Amino acid sequence: MVSRELAEKILSIAEELGYRRNPLASGLRTRRSYTVGVLIPDLTNPVFPPIVRGVERTLAAQGFTAVLADSAHDEENALAILENMSSRHVDGVILATAHRKDKLVEQCVQQGLPLVLVNRTVDDHNISAVINDDERGIRLAMRHLTSLGHRHIGHIGGPQTTSTGYTRYRAFLKTAREMGLKVERELIVNAKEYTEAAGQNALLQIIDSGKPFTAVIAANDMLALGCYDALAERGMRCPDDVSITGFNDMPFVDRFHPPLTTVHIPHHELGVQAALMLLERIRDPQAPAKLLRLEPRLIVRGSTRALS
Amino acid sequence: MVSRELAEKILSIAEELGYRRNPLASGLRTRRSYTVGVLIPDLTNPVFPPIVRGVERTLAAQGFTAVLADSAHDEENALAILENMSSRHVDGVILATAHRKDKLVEQCVQQGLPLVLVNRTVDDHNISAVINDDERGIRLAMRHLTSLGHRHIGHIGGPQTTSTGYTRYRAFLKTAREMGLKVERELIVNAKEYTEAAGQNALLQIIDSGKPFTAVIAANDMLALGCYDALAERGMRCPDDVSITGFNDMPFVDRFHPPLTTVHIPHHELGVQAALMLLERIRDPQAPAKLLRLEPRLIVRGSTRALS
Repeated sequence: MVSRELAEKILSIAEELGYRRNPLASGLRTRRSYTVGVLIPDLTNPVFPPIVRGVERTLAAQGFTAVLADSAHDEENALAILENMSSRHVDGVILATAHRKDKLVEQCVQQGLPLVLVNRTVDDHNISAVINDDERGIRLAMRHLTSLGHRHIGHIGGPQTTSTGYTRYRAFLKTAREMGLKVERELIVNAKEYTEAAGQNALLQIIDSGKPFTAVIAANDMLALGCYDALAERGMRCPDDVSITGFNDMPFVDRFHPPLTTVHIPHHELGVQAALMLLERIRDPQAPAKLLRLEPRLIVRGSTRALS
Repeated sequence: MVSRELAEKILSIAEELGYRRNPLASGLRTRRSYTVGVLIPDLTNPVFPPIVRGVERTLAAQGFTAVLADSAHDEENALAILENMSSRHVDGVILATAHRKDKLVEQCVQQGLPLVLVNRTVDDHNISAVINDDERGIRLAMRHLTSLGHRHIGHIGGPQTTSTGYTRYRAFLKTAREMGLKVERELIVNAKEYTEAAGQNALLQIIDSGKPFTAVIAANDMLALGCYDALAERGMRCPDDVSITGFNDMPFVDRFHPPLTTVHIPHHELGVQAALMLLERIRDPQAPAKLLRLEPRLIVRGSTRALS
């Protein structure tokens, strides 16, 4: 044991001599690298940057650095990235990529790597996660559309392998039943990916079914943008011919033509809470898993209008 | 020396037994971690994700992993992130954050860390970089506006501490002189940051100067969006009262209201070329520095119109 004073003196001399703390070496000693991996499914979806900002700032305030990676919707990519992160001794990971059954989550559990899910969760709820109340979000959108007089409402669902896609789709069916709306199968198409192209294809399929409809609830904003493209392709207008709602309130949707009515999720707060939860797990890996669900709200803009 | 066959057999048995290649350990042995740091100045600016995608895919094809970090326009953040990356033995870094005089670049040079700049460069051209022909981009925008009859053209410049802000501003002055336009000082404001808020403030300053103008060239798309906000705030319309051009053609600008006329830069290709250049430098750190300049083109959309 050396005195605190001596230790500080040694460190200051070492610093003068050009020595720097090597997180890797100190990782070996203290078993901490003060680095956290953050994996997102699609860097080009503007909903993720503000979530990542929330994570980064919260971690930085505790002396941790975030390293970010983009799986580009590809599980093989994601597994390779996780492998790289884990062999580089990150102290934990935050995954925004989760599928309802998820190989990455299994890997983390097997390796005992502290883990928090954000935005999406897995079916087996024994993993800590910070998510949105997806059911309530869909109910808000449905209530808004029916209050405007819409009765024939379609749904562009997300990938059913994700908790968001699945929960929002189930919520659509459930709310429609509660409201006494007839659920028409031709008006529901679940997209394979949360992309504009997938949303466009899904709405084209609905339009081409010939079933009449006046509104569509898209499972996220990227799908909603694809709906704009499908309407334009068929010479239809939003909101004149069809009202559209999204989910996420990602940056820039207020600037679109028309500005998108959507379910707002608290992006920054999702990131902050996920980071805090991960720091807790790093300090106490044996703590029980937690599920934190944040409340969304509806933002009404120009893409929805009353039936005349 | 072992035969290739034997080596492969050993690796396959090791894999079966659950051994994984530890990039850290092999980093110590081969002095390669097969990891590259990528630092961007603003994750919320949609121009960066497609550049990063280009980097990631090119690196992945060569067995390298990208770790990404966001400096949020803050040099102290950036230095801390670089320190973390470097002490974790990245093989090199790609910086999209460069200022004309840049502490991070100096740090990398001092440490002998292979380095490539992307999108922006430094005044001292002895550093490898992949950038755009910023002067030509501004000239394309000016030529477009003058061909529409505009003579009183303003400029919202970017931060003059960046090569993009400085080069585009100098190009605006130079092209205006070449075209015989009177350069009015009140119509030029250089923003402190490439953000919507900074663009908005800059255009408000120009509007409130009282000098008449019919068009504005913004140094990037985020500033151009801020111009939309400033016009709305003063009850003016784009393009009816003022034509606006941006720079970057970042994702989503075609969806804005009005869709933005802007200078397109080849995002993905910038990333691909920066990654290839870095891989070259990692293999041969003594190779001379290279500057690769990619040609931009003008995309005309709804934010510019002919003077009637």
